[in-house]
Amino acid sequence: MHVVVPFAADRPKTRLADTLDTDERREFADAMLRDVLAALDAVPRSLEVTVLSTGPVDGVDAAIEIDERPLTPAVNDRLGTAPTAVVMADLALATPDALTELFAAEADLAIAAGLGGGTNAFLARDSAFRVDYHGASYRDHLAIAREEGLSVREVDSRLLAVDIDEPADLAELLLHGDGAARDWLVDAGFELSVGGGRVEVVRE
Amino acid sequence: MHVVVPFAADRPKTRLADTLDTDERREFADAMLRDVLAALDAVPRSLEVTVLSTGPVDGVDAAIEIDERPLTPAVNDRLGTAPTAVVMADLALATPDALTELFAAEADLAIAAGLGGGTNAFLARDSAFRVDYHGASYRDHLAIAREEGLSVREVDSRLLAVDIDEPADLAELLLHGDGAARDWLVDAGFELSVGGGRVEVVRE
Repeated sequence: MHVVVPFAADRPKTRLADTLDTDERREFADAMLRDVLAALDAVPRSLEVTVLSTGPVDGVDAAIEIDERPLTPAVNDRLGTAPTAVVMADLALATPDALTELFAAEADLAIAAGLGGGTNAFLARDSAFRVDYHGASYRDHLAIAREEGLSVREVDSRLLAVDIDEPADLAELLLHGDGAARDWLVDAGFELSVGGGRVEVVRE
Repeated sequence: MHVVVPFAADRPKTRLADTLDTDERREFADAMLRDVLAALDAVPRSLEVTVLSTGPVDGVDAAIEIDERPLTPAVNDRLGTAPTAVVMADLALATPDALTELFAAEADLAIAAGLGGGTNAFLARDSAFRVDYHGASYRDHLAIAREEGLSVREVDSRLLAVDIDEPADLAELLLHGDGAARDWLVDAGFELSVGGGRVEVVRE
């Protein structure tokens, strides 16, 4: 099974710009990519993993393909031969178990929603599937599958749903993470702040 | 199996106070409670469901117990006889499948995290377990289980993780819901707003 991990090397994590500076965002994004690759590496299944990056990536143990185009055409060009999975590089909570459940699904399309309507991971076993990451992509992807007559399995996973995009997501990583990205945040001075509602993060 | 559904009838959904007025918050909370009870009703397993409410509740088809105390002592008083599950009343995305997976877990404690460090649902098969909902309760509950020597199964479910507490959660309900609470939101004029990042809601 081929697994594509798209990675925005040029403008990583722009929605964290108020929280981390440019160099920090790149370091943090690199750490999350390493976590995702480590989780994939621990899946008990033969996977051929490619990082699909908009620019050079150092220090990861995977094949890198550079493609400077936007996400949608870059991914669609890799979907010709099924089965192909696409797993986002900011799923720093993804575990081998959660990924294994996705990869074990037998539907033409197994798909895991992200918070806020995105598509965080999918496995297409039918080459008719194509992506459109603009807007609320999860709904669009279900619609594309329906148009193509594909069977769909919606994978219900919190660990695949939490992509680390916004400051509130950093709390999820401190609460539940145990890899390079969590270590990076702790080293950068972030800690949990427990108030009345959801836990937040503060930086020392 | 006994299932307790705690419900704050007196001060529902205070973190939505900027989005919904007091009467609306109560109507919306009632609709979410109905959705949770409907999901429990569709679980293929014999469940004895009790709504543990701080005040009167109308229009639901379940036993109601009134307990005006804070959540922690009120729930702990119901944990004497195992197995007992506790499922929050604002899990408007909860499906029978997600709940069935929780209830099927054989560990002493099966537990599903909420976003932001909360505990959205659990099943205690050992009467030594007790709750402490103050602060980041998920970590505290894992610690309590560890202290008591209980086996733990962490249930990985987005549908159980999204409690509808904050304005951003309304988008999740419009994206993925299909019950009374989603209908209430639509009737109240809420719709999705698709921008550059996560989908948000706007009110007409």
